[in-house]
Amino acid sequence: MNAPATLQSAPAFADAQASCPVALGWMQGSPPPPHRRIRLDDGSAYRFPQLRWSFCHLDHLMPVAEVARGPVPVWDLPRAERDDIGRLAFLPAASRRPIAWDQAMAEAYTDGVLVLHRGRIVHERYHGALGPAQRHTAMSVTKSVLGLLAAMLIDEGALREHAPLTHYLPELAGTGFAGATVGQVLDMATALDFSEDYADPQAHIWRHARACGVLPHPPGDTGPRSIAEFLRTVGAAGPHGQTFCYRTVNSDALALALQRVTGQDLATHLAERLWGRLGAEHTAYFTVDSEGTPFAGGGLNTTLRDLARLGEMLRCDGWADGRQLVPAAVVARLRAGGCPETFARARITGMRGWSYRAMWWVSHNPHGAWMARGVHGQALYIDPKAEMVVARYASHPLPASLACDPTALRAWQALGLRLAEGG
Amino acid sequence: MNAPATLQSAPAFADAQASCPVALGWMQGSPPPPHRRIRLDDGSAYRFPQLRWSFCHLDHLMPVAEVARGPVPVWDLPRAERDDIGRLAFLPAASRRPIAWDQAMAEAYTDGVLVLHRGRIVHERYHGALGPAQRHTAMSVTKSVLGLLAAMLIDEGALREHAPLTHYLPELAGTGFAGATVGQVLDMATALDFSEDYADPQAHIWRHARACGVLPHPPGDTGPRSIAEFLRTVGAAGPHGQTFCYRTVNSDALALALQRVTGQDLATHLAERLWGRLGAEHTAYFTVDSEGTPFAGGGLNTTLRDLARLGEMLRCDGWADGRQLVPAAVVARLRAGGCPETFARARITGMRGWSYRAMWWVSHNPHGAWMARGVHGQALYIDPKAEMVVARYASHPLPASLACDPTALRAWQALGLRLAEGG
Repeated sequence: MNAPATLQSAPAFADAQASCPVALGWMQGSPPPPHRRIRLDDGSAYRFPQLRWSFCHLDHLMPVAEVARGPVPVWDLPRAERDDIGRLAFLPAASRRPIAWDQAMAEAYTDGVLVLHRGRIVHERYHGALGPAQRHTAMSVTKSVLGLLAAMLIDEGALREHAPLTHYLPELAGTGFAGATVGQVLDMATALDFSEDYADPQAHIWRHARACGVLPHPPGDTGPRSIAEFLRTVGAAGPHGQTFCYRTVNSDALALALQRVTGQDLATHLAERLWGRLGAEHTAYFTVDSEGTPFAGGGLNTTLRDLARLGEMLRCDGWADGRQLVPAAVVARLRAGGCPETFARARITGMRGWSYRAMWWVSHNPHGAWMARGVHGQALYIDPKAEMVVARYASHPLPASLACDPTALRAWQALGLRLAEGG
Repeated sequence: MNAPATLQSAPAFADAQASCPVALGWMQGSPPPPHRRIRLDDGSAYRFPQLRWSFCHLDHLMPVAEVARGPVPVWDLPRAERDDIGRLAFLPAASRRPIAWDQAMAEAYTDGVLVLHRGRIVHERYHGALGPAQRHTAMSVTKSVLGLLAAMLIDEGALREHAPLTHYLPELAGTGFAGATVGQVLDMATALDFSEDYADPQAHIWRHARACGVLPHPPGDTGPRSIAEFLRTVGAAGPHGQTFCYRTVNSDALALALQRVTGQDLATHLAERLWGRLGAEHTAYFTVDSEGTPFAGGGLNTTLRDLARLGEMLRCDGWADGRQLVPAAVVARLRAGGCPETFARARITGMRGWSYRAMWWVSHNPHGAWMARGVHGQALYIDPKAEMVVARYASHPLPASLACDPTALRAWQALGLRLAEGG
């Protein structure tokens, strides 16, 4: 959520090394001198290169709700590191010049990347302000975690996919959500008057970010002060169910319904259903809005290894270190993907043939890979055929998917091919 | 840090059961309805009974800095629970009516109390919003943790006890701290123009709390916005070194010096020196001010068991689960206490014969008990002779020590006598 900038007009940003938040000394000093200080209320937190520090320290900047790791032992991930991954060469989309994995990671301002192959750590690197015990914003990877929880509740019958969302949230009857089913919200097949173009300073997403508490309210701002309040302002934009249309507010509305049904806030529910049984090494946290509501559209923060554990659990049909956390049928339904036609109508660059199901991106490639994605380079990629999981946290200057995807999607795919070959 | 109220004019507060934050449903609902909502900016967080929820959820209300628990295994505390402690009867100070332990804990709005005897948990109770995995504000127990870290640095020669504080913090040369030694700051034997009477709405402590970020700035408030800024406004009040004078700003100044010397913020330093090697079950956290500086005067939050582990480590001369964290000589110096005459001049009700050393309260009673104390009922009591440690977190409506001490100090003492007798 940087200051808006298009890819075309992108200024020349300092590279990963030159923008390293540790080397630049952000927030160092007692107290940090003004030129090294990063805060939410002065707008510095999401500026580049400051965001490279902020993305590892959102709890230093805004209130949060903890996601407890519970009493189960840490899920040990054995190591079988291989030294060839950094040199793996592949061709980014729309490029004729092969690039090496390490170079690609640096160009994406990768803060950490971890590869599991058959449950073993084969590659793990940290850069910038990230370390193994540090939590990093997952951005929209959060949505996929929410989608998984919602799919579990649907499987149990606690949430009905074909019920209108307003059955659970009657206060949204007069909004653009009227007439949408829970399933349409879950699959982002709603038609809402909500623009999510980060390059447009007038886009709804900025007003939304202020309501969610992740951007400050400028003086005189009369916009919504909370997620619940924002949802009541969302307008309609045609009939639901026609086209995949990626809108963060779907996640926030779904989370509100989930919370209404379970009687738990999202942080507590995630801890009870997944985090507290996963064998996570660390607690996770959600940033919260002014009413204490976790930001379901992008507020989750975890360590890189714990994100990888979540992916490995899904790769293993819901099993984590001997415990079944998610029914295999639920995992299978997510992995199978959504309606290809609905998705194709959205004409998303670089994702031809993909679909979207329960807030997960499904490639339908020969490996059956599926993933969670977040702006600024966040990714959790699951390749069933290669028995591979990649978790990547990054702090790319630009929030546009196009800034990272052309290289990242090819990187994950290339490594999956290499590992599947046994090479 | 409730709205000021004297003991004399104290209104009749709802009792522990009637003010139970879970039963009252604070912050329940998606989103919580206005009458159940607790936030920092509207002043509700420190109101009673809301504070009973807030004290377990400060990270939901303000930014924090994590204190990592590190990679060492959890220090297992074996259980040998006994059922007689709740019925232990004792006489509160200035009372003729004996009271039972359980009743005393309820009257102090105890959120959790844990007793270790010879390293075993003999008693552990949770109430209100606290559970074994929940972190609670330690209030001024924070100061003692800081004092311990400072004493370690002095022992290592990194911080000089007899050096003027301004040697480390030259920016305080024009303030009331001028002329005070590090040792005088550490032992609160400075003479500062800083009133800490919570019953006086004009007391400096309220302006200080706003600067520390634990109370909101009302509109138009032009007071200091950070701890470092506040320290530069502290005036003088006579010669240093004469009288013990409990002033929270001493802790904040000492922490700034510690941070200047170590090049680490207090949260990082605590993690490196103690928390990451203690075998803590959970990460701890500090609330931070608008510059990201941890609030050393009262911002630490831990689980009850981890607080007890810290006490047990000190009872065991600095050893924690087979690791020496603190040199035995440092522990011995703290336990030996400070200058009794300097302390006696402060005429603190109910603490005749005590002294204060490195931000620890030393009883000089026949058991050699010493402790850390915080307003609203926080306590860590170490009784070497009884081989006992008591950790207690509470949310008493009043921030005055006199609200809890007359009963609490007698409770810890009575249990120490009982356990020492082998009864």
